[in-house]
Amino acid sequence: MENISMRLKQQLNFLYEIDKLKKILRRSTLIADPDRLENTAEHSWHLGLYVMVLAEYTNAQIDILRVIKMVLIHDIVEIDAGDTFCYDAEKNMDKGVREQNAANRLFGLLPDDQRDEFMNLWHEFEKRETPEARFAASVDRMQPMLHNYVTGGGSWKRHGVKRHQVDERRLPIADGSEILADLIKTILDDAVEKNILQAG
Amino acid sequence: MENISMRLKQQLNFLYEIDKLKKILRRSTLIADPDRLENTAEHSWHLGLYVMVLAEYTNAQIDILRVIKMVLIHDIVEIDAGDTFCYDAEKNMDKGVREQNAANRLFGLLPDDQRDEFMNLWHEFEKRETPEARFAASVDRMQPMLHNYVTGGGSWKRHGVKRHQVDERRLPIADGSEILADLIKTILDDAVEKNILQAG
Repeated sequence: MENISMRLKQQLNFLYEIDKLKKILRRSTLIADPDRLENTAEHSWHLGLYVMVLAEYTNAQIDILRVIKMVLIHDIVEIDAGDTFCYDAEKNMDKGVREQNAANRLFGLLPDDQRDEFMNLWHEFEKRETPEARFAASVDRMQPMLHNYVTGGGSWKRHGVKRHQVDERRLPIADGSEILADLIKTILDDAVEKNILQAG
Repeated sequence: MENISMRLKQQLNFLYEIDKLKKILRRSTLIADPDRLENTAEHSWHLGLYVMVLAEYTNAQIDILRVIKMVLIHDIVEIDAGDTFCYDAEKNMDKGVREQNAANRLFGLLPDDQRDEFMNLWHEFEKRETPEARFAASVDRMQPMLHNYVTGGGSWKRHGVKRHQVDERRLPIADGSEILADLIKTILDDAVEKNILQAG
């Protein structure tokens, strides 16, 4: 294997390592199988499609390539840091440190220029300051809400989540897309009415 | 729900329907778990990352956004048509018809303009005539080969695949990237030497 460049070897090692994202389980089940939890690799793929299909609803002009890159890599840190359930207050306290360490190790497998590109994309996503990051956050927040809704409650029911908790998670959606935020409000109202999300 | 536009409803129905891709199993296992088959949604996510990391090795200048879109949607037809094992000659005979019917139904869930965009991207991928489609095909062909290699044989071993069969699958890689084609040749030579791929 001595005729394979160090750069290409680093790139392949990164691509092999991130295979582990397929083993990180989220709290939501599949729409297609309520007995099987979604993993983070599948979730990231689905968000790529959400961006492709719903980009027209963004508040500001966006560079779609950067948004798609962001959603494809935004959760890679979970390989080391695990999936932190958004309604688990305690685990969310040290989430930042755990995820930064994970980013250092995982993106650090890449050649320096690509390590920097991926790290920047991930920080951009986390900070939600650019129109691209805001739209990426919108689809990331709305996907599990929609999936809980169409599966009759999903992780809301299993974990006793209440409307005001979902509303807190919902707020950033409007920063990326007013139209999608309206959609989610309509759907949450209906979810409460149908008793698949607890009021209060 | 009468205040949600018909267009947005169609888009959401498509996004819910493609959740089924997470249930379509391929012949390769995970690198991270040799007892679990990879599903097509995960595979598509992984290819998105392959494109992001390896795009510098393309033979021609490419529009990376179009390549990523292509790899994210290229296997959605498998929801109806199933995953056709590339070394199963019989099943590959009617693959074209089955997949076109699937594309008509699945992309047909979208509003007309997006149906056309997705159909065009899928046809472009299938025809392998543009630099973008050729590079997308390169990563699609090489990913399972690399994963079989690093897992000590994988689906090659389980299905008794021989070197000449892999070589046929390998040929289109050079159309997208000479450098990645060289990499794969080196790896296949080593795989035969290590007895994880049958010679002949």
